[in-house]
Amino acid sequence: MRMAMVGLGRMGANIVRRLLRDGHECVVYDVNPDAVAALAAEGAVPSTDIADMASQLEGPRVVWLMIPAGLTGTVVSEVAEVLTAGDIVIDGGNSNYRDDVRRAASLRERGIHYVDAGTSGGVFGLERGYCLMVGGADEAVSTIEPILRTIAPGPGDIERTPGREGDFAPEELGYLHCGPAGAGHFVKMVHNGIEYGIMASLAEGFNILHNADAGLREADHSAEVAPLEEPEFYQFDIDVPKVAELWRRGSVISSWLLDLTAAALEQSPTLEGLAGRVSDSGEGRWTVKAAVDVGVPAPVLAASLFERFASRDEDQYANQLLSAMRLQFGGHQELPTGDRLEAGSRKAE
Amino acid sequence: MRMAMVGLGRMGANIVRRLLRDGHECVVYDVNPDAVAALAAEGAVPSTDIADMASQLEGPRVVWLMIPAGLTGTVVSEVAEVLTAGDIVIDGGNSNYRDDVRRAASLRERGIHYVDAGTSGGVFGLERGYCLMVGGADEAVSTIEPILRTIAPGPGDIERTPGREGDFAPEELGYLHCGPAGAGHFVKMVHNGIEYGIMASLAEGFNILHNADAGLREADHSAEVAPLEEPEFYQFDIDVPKVAELWRRGSVISSWLLDLTAAALEQSPTLEGLAGRVSDSGEGRWTVKAAVDVGVPAPVLAASLFERFASRDEDQYANQLLSAMRLQFGGHQELPTGDRLEAGSRKAE
Amino acid sequence: MRMAMVGLGRMGANIVRRLLRDGHECVVYDVNPDAVAALAAEGAVPSTDIADMASQLEGPRVVWLMIPAGLTGTVVSEVAEVLTAGDIVIDGGNSNYRDDVRRAASLRERGIHYVDAGTSGGVFGLERGYCLMVGGADEAVSTIEPILRTIAPGPGDIERTPGREGDFAPEELGYLHCGPAGAGHFVKMVHNGIEYGIMASLAEGFNILHNADAGLREADHSAEVAPLEEPEFYQFDIDVPKVAELWRRGSVISSWLLDLTAAALEQSPTLEGLAGRVSDSGEGRWTVKAAVDVGVPAPVLAASLFERFASRDEDQYANQLLSAMRLQFGGHQELPTGDRLEAGSRKAE
Amino acid sequence: MRMAMVGLGRMGANIVRRLLRDGHECVVYDVNPDAVAALAAEGAVPSTDIADMASQLEGPRVVWLMIPAGLTGTVVSEVAEVLTAGDIVIDGGNSNYRDDVRRAASLRERGIHYVDAGTSGGVFGLERGYCLMVGGADEAVSTIEPILRTIAPGPGDIERTPGREGDFAPEELGYLHCGPAGAGHFVKMVHNGIEYGIMASLAEGFNILHNADAGLREADHSAEVAPLEEPEFYQFDIDVPKVAELWRRGSVISSWLLDLTAAALEQSPTLEGLAGRVSDSGEGRWTVKAAVDVGVPAPVLAASLFERFASRDEDQYANQLLSAMRLQFGGHQELPTGDRLEAGSRKAE
Repeated sequence: MRMAMVGLGRMGANIVRRLLRDGHECVVYDVNPDAVAALAAEGAVPSTDIADMASQLEGPRVVWLMIPAGLTGTVVSEVAEVLTAGDIVIDGGNSNYRDDVRRAASLRERGIHYVDAGTSGGVFGLERGYCLMVGGADEAVSTIEPILRTIAPGPGDIERTPGREGDFAPEELGYLHCGPAGAGHFVKMVHNGIEYGIMASLAEGFNILHNADAGLREADHSAEVAPLEEPEFYQFDIDVPKVAELWRRGSVISSWLLDLTAAALEQSPTLEGLAGRVSDSGEGRWTVKAAVDVGVPAPVLAASLFERFASRDEDQYANQLLSAMRLQFGGHQELPTGDRLEAGSRKAE
Repeated sequence: MRMAMVGLGRMGANIVRRLLRDGHECVVYDVNPDAVAALAAEGAVPSTDIADMASQLEGPRVVWLMIPAGLTGTVVSEVAEVLTAGDIVIDGGNSNYRDDVRRAASLRERGIHYVDAGTSGGVFGLERGYCLMVGGADEAVSTIEPILRTIAPGPGDIERTPGREGDFAPEELGYLHCGPAGAGHFVKMVHNGIEYGIMASLAEGFNILHNADAGLREADHSAEVAPLEEPEFYQFDIDVPKVAELWRRGSVISSWLLDLTAAALEQSPTLEGLAGRVSDSGEGRWTVKAAVDVGVPAPVLAASLFERFASRDEDQYANQLLSAMRLQFGGHQELPTGDRLEAGSRKAE
Repeated sequence: MRMAMVGLGRMGANIVRRLLRDGHECVVYDVNPDAVAALAAEGAVPSTDIADMASQLEGPRVVWLMIPAGLTGTVVSEVAEVLTAGDIVIDGGNSNYRDDVRRAASLRERGIHYVDAGTSGGVFGLERGYCLMVGGADEAVSTIEPILRTIAPGPGDIERTPGREGDFAPEELGYLHCGPAGAGHFVKMVHNGIEYGIMASLAEGFNILHNADAGLREADHSAEVAPLEEPEFYQFDIDVPKVAELWRRGSVISSWLLDLTAAALEQSPTLEGLAGRVSDSGEGRWTVKAAVDVGVPAPVLAASLFERFASRDEDQYANQLLSAMRLQFGGHQELPTGDRLEAGSRKAE
Repeated sequence: MRMAMVGLGRMGANIVRRLLRDGHECVVYDVNPDAVAALAAEGAVPSTDIADMASQLEGPRVVWLMIPAGLTGTVVSEVAEVLTAGDIVIDGGNSNYRDDVRRAASLRERGIHYVDAGTSGGVFGLERGYCLMVGGADEAVSTIEPILRTIAPGPGDIERTPGREGDFAPEELGYLHCGPAGAGHFVKMVHNGIEYGIMASLAEGFNILHNADAGLREADHSAEVAPLEEPEFYQFDIDVPKVAELWRRGSVISSWLLDLTAAALEQSPTLEGLAGRVSDSGEGRWTVKAAVDVGVPAPVLAASLFERFASRDEDQYANQLLSAMRLQFGGHQELPTGDRLEAGSRKAE
C-alpha cells in the first residue's frame, strides 16, 4: 500500500527502507531536503512540503510521523490541516501516551484517526525489524495492518511458545493492537521501564564481579577508614568481558541486552571514553509515575531510574546534607575530595 | 574420559546423559539405588557406594557432586576419604562460594583438587546444555576440560559477538574458568542475583500493564478512600499474555526469561494455582551481602530480593507498626481486612 | 482578628478553639449544623450558609477552608462567589499543590487571594499547635499573619538552634511563608514524603529486631526449604516495646514518630487488631512524582511508598508471575498457601 | 562504684567525666599518657599500663573498653590476661555483635564476663547522656547497673509515654539489658541502620525542595536534551534552611536529626566545604546483612546504605556499562563530562 513518512532520521529512513523492500510505496518528507533526496534515490516518492505530501496520497491517506517527541504536537496539527475525515495519522515516535489520548480526542472531532505506534528496535531495526505496540480505533489499525506487518520482525527463527500453533498471531509477527489511542505508547513506556530495570540488574551485577578483588587491593587504612572485613572471600580477579560472553550461552539471563553488553566489552574491555553519566529518556520516568498512580509497587524500576539520576550527580545536595548531619552528631569529617575509599573499606566511627 | 557422578537427581542425571551421548564414561552413584539402575540402563556404570564408585575410576580420579547444598559438606568429606593426591572433586551444586574457599583449602592439605562448577540451565539443560562457571586450580580445570566442553551448550546458532573471530574461546562454548576455587560459584551467585533483578523488572512492568484499567473500575469511595486521580489515563484493558509474546520479537528486552513468561501466560493466562508466595534460594541473598561487603550499590538487586520476602508476608510486623503509627498521630483506622482498595485509589486523610 | 472557618471536623474545630483561646473571633460554618452549634457554644459566631458566613465578615474577608481534599475545588468556587477583590481564601486541607497553582490563577482574575496552608500536627495539634507551611502573595500572607501565629506552636521549650538569636523568626514560631500559591502545599507534600521514609525506617528496623530470634525457632526443613545459615547469631529474644522506649532517650534517632511507636507498643505490645494493611494518602505519591519530574533520586522515599502498596497485596500479580517463571525454568513449585517459611529459612534449589 | 576505662578518646573521656561527676571512681588508661594525665587532673586514678590498671581494681573488677573497633579484639585479650573469674569486661565501642558472641564464648571458658554496651549519643553525650544497649549475663549486667544508670541520660524532661507510671523502668532512664552477649550491639546496629534511613529520608526530601525551582532555570536544550515537562509546577524558590527550622515545631517529622540539619544549615546555608562523599561505618552494612539473613524486607534501609556508596562513586563501573549499552542499542552518546543536565531535563531519544 501507499503511505507517507514525515521525519527521515535514522529510524524514519530505515522504516521507509523496510517498506520499499517489501513493495510498499512511500511518499517521504523531511525539513532537510537532502534526506528526502537520499530516500528518493532509493525509490521513495519525494515531496516538498506537507501539503505536497498529502496531495500524493489517496484516501484514506496514511501519514506516519517519526520525529522528536518535542515536535510531535506541532507536526500533528500541521498534518491534520491537510487531511480529511477517514484519514489516519500515525505517531511512531516516543510520545507520552497522555499526549496521544489528548491528540486522538482532538482529531476525532474532525473524523481523523490517530494511531500511536510505540516502536522498539534501535539501530538494528532495519535488519531485525521493529517491535510495534499500536493504539487506536479498530478501523484505523485494520487499514494499516499491511504496513505494520512489513515493519515488524516477523516470526524469524525464534522458537515458538509451547501451546501456540497454526497461523501466526500478530503478536508472533511482532506487532500488536494494544487498545485505543494511547495504548501503544503506554505499552512501549512500560517496555522501556522494564528495560531500565534489566539494564540496571546487569550493570549492578557486573559491578560486583568487577569488585570481587576488593580483598587483594592494598588499602591505606587511616584511623578514619576501616579495612574490608573477611578479605579472604574477595580475592577473585574476574574477567568481566569473558563472563558477559559466557552467560550468553545456556544461562537463565541470556538476553539481547546481555548480547550488547558482551559486544561493548569486547570492543573496549575498559569501557574507555565513557564517564558513566547515564541519560534517561521520558519513558522510564513515566513508568514510575504510572505505577504510583495506579498504586502498584515498582521498587526495582524506580531504583533503576534513580540510579541514573545519581550518575549525573543529582544526588549531590542530598549527600552534602548527609555529611553535614554526620559532622553535627559525630564530628565526622568528610574524606578529602580526590581520595577514594578502597572498595569494601569504610570509615571507622 | 571417565568420571563419576554422585547425586542423580534431575540435573545430575541429565548431565550424565549429555556425557554418555558424547562418548564419555560415567560411573554413577546415588543413595537411591533405583536412580543408579535407571542410568545404568542408559549406559552408565553403576556403583553401590562411594568406595565402590572410587574403585572404578583411575587416577587422576574425577568425581562430580550434584547434590543439595545442605549435604555437600558431608559428601565432600566422604568422597575425599576414598581419594588420593592429584584426584579432583567437582561441586556442581548451589554451594555458597565461601564454603568452596574453605573446602578447597582443607582438601589442598591432602593434595586433592577441589573445583566448583556453578551450573545454570534449569530443566532445559539436557537439550540446551548447561552454562558452566568454574573455579579451581589451573591444573585441575585443564584436566576436566573435555567434560566441561560436553556439558556446556557449545556455540549453537547464537550470533557471534562482533569482533570475535577464529576458534571459539571457552566462554563462547559455554564454560569459563573464572579463577581459583570459589570463583565459579561466585560468578554463578552474581548470575542468580542478576536473574532476580531481571525477573522483578518483568514482573513489575507486567503488573503495571495489568492495572492499566484502573480508571475503568467502579470503586466504592467512602470518606476514607479517595478515587484515582486522572482516571482518563488508565482506561486500557491490556492483554498481558499477548504483550509478553510480542516483546519476544525485535524488542530491546527480548530474553529467555521473557520467553518463559510468555510460555507461562500462554499456559494459563490467569496464572491459576499460583498464590504469589515467591521462594528464594541462597544466591540472591549472598549477592546482596557481597555487594554490601565490597561496598558497591545494588539497590535493584536488593529490592528484587526484598520483594520476594514481602511476598511471603515477612513484612507484616513492619506494616502493623506503620498502621499503629498512623493510628497514633492521625487517628487513622486500617481498612477492614478482607476489603481491598481499588488499585489507584487511596485513603483520604 | 476576625476570620471564618468552613469545615468543622476534628482539625477545623481544633484550629477554631486555638484561635478563640487567643482572642480571635471566628465565624464558623459546616454542612452539619450540630458542628456549628457545638463551636458556637464555645464562643464562635455561628452561620447558616456560606453567604451568611461571608456577610458576618468585613473586608478584607478571610475564609479558612478545612475540608476533605476531594471537595475543596467545589467549596473554593462557592466561597469565591460571595467574596470580592482583596478578600482571602485559605485552603488548610491536604490539596495537591498543583490544584493550588490552578485555583490561585483562577481567583487572581477576580482579585481574590488564594493562600494554601499545609498543616501538620495530627490529633495533638490542639495542645501542641500546628506546623504551618504557607503559600500565597506577600500581601495576603501578611494580612493573615496574626492568625498563623496563633495556630502555630510557637517557640515552646524546644532548644534554640545554635546561631539563632534575638527575636524569634516566623519559622521558629512554627509557620513559614514558603513562596507563591502552591508553595505551602508543596513543602507539606515533601514533609509527608519524608514522614513515609522515617516511618518505614523505624518499621523495617523494628522488624529486624522482632526476628532476631530466627535461630531459636524450630523449623521443619523439607527438601525445598533450607535452614537459616549461622543460626548462632540470631538467638536474641528482643523486647521490642522496651527498645522503642529506650531509644527515646539520648539516641540519635529520637523523634516524635519514635515516641508514637513507643506509645503504640506500650498500649498493645503485640499490635493487636492491626492487620498491617497500610493506607497512603496523596502526599507520598506526589512527592515521588515530583522527584521524578525534577530528576532527583528518591529511592528511600519511593521504597517507603511501594512498601505500603505491597502491604495491601498490590504486588500479587507481579509475585504470581515470579512464581510462574520459577516454575518454568526450574520446575520449582510454590510453597503451599497457608504454610509460612520460617523467617530466615529459604527454598533450596 | 569503682571501674576502669581503657581508651580515653572523646567518648571514653566524656564517659569518665559523667562517672566522676556522679561520684564513681575511675581508673583510666590510654596508650597516650597525656590523655591519662588530663583525666587524672579531673579526678580520675591514672594507670601506666593494663596490669597497673587491673591492680588498682578489686573483684569483681570492671573494665570498660572504649577503643576503635579494629583494636578491640586485641585489647580484650590483653585485658583478659590480667583478670580472673568473676571479673567483667565491657566493650562500649562499635563492635560487630558477631565478635561479641565469639569473644563472650571465649572469655566464658575462663569465667570472665563479657558485656557489650552499644552506646549512642555522639558529641553531645557528655551533657545529654548516652543511650546504652547492653548485652551479657544477668549477673554481670546487674553488677554494673550503677554505672549504666550514671552514663545514661535519665528520664530528663521527655514526656512520659502514656500508660507508663510509677518508678521509671531502666529503658526510661536510657539503658536496657537487651539479652545475652551480643544483644546490645545487635540493637545498636539496628539503631544505626534506622539512623541511615531517617537521614536519607530527610536528605532526599530536602533535595526535592532544593530543586523545586527547576522550572525557573534557563536550560540549553540541545537535540539530545528535552526540557522539563510542566515547568509551571516547579517555580518555587524554597528557603531550605528555614523549612528545616520550621519543621522542628509541631510537625510529625520533628526529630533530633532534623534539629541537627537545621543547625548545619544555619551554620552554612550552602553547606560549604562539603563535597557530598558520605562515609559509612559498619552498622548500616551489618543491618542490611542481618535483614537478608533472617529474611525480612529492608528496602529503605538498604537504599539508604547504597546511596552512600554511590555518593563515593562506587557506582561508576555500573554506570559506564549502562552508557555502553545505550550506545550499543541506540547509538546514544553520553553527555560530555563537565556538562550537567539541568535538573528536570532529560536526554531525548
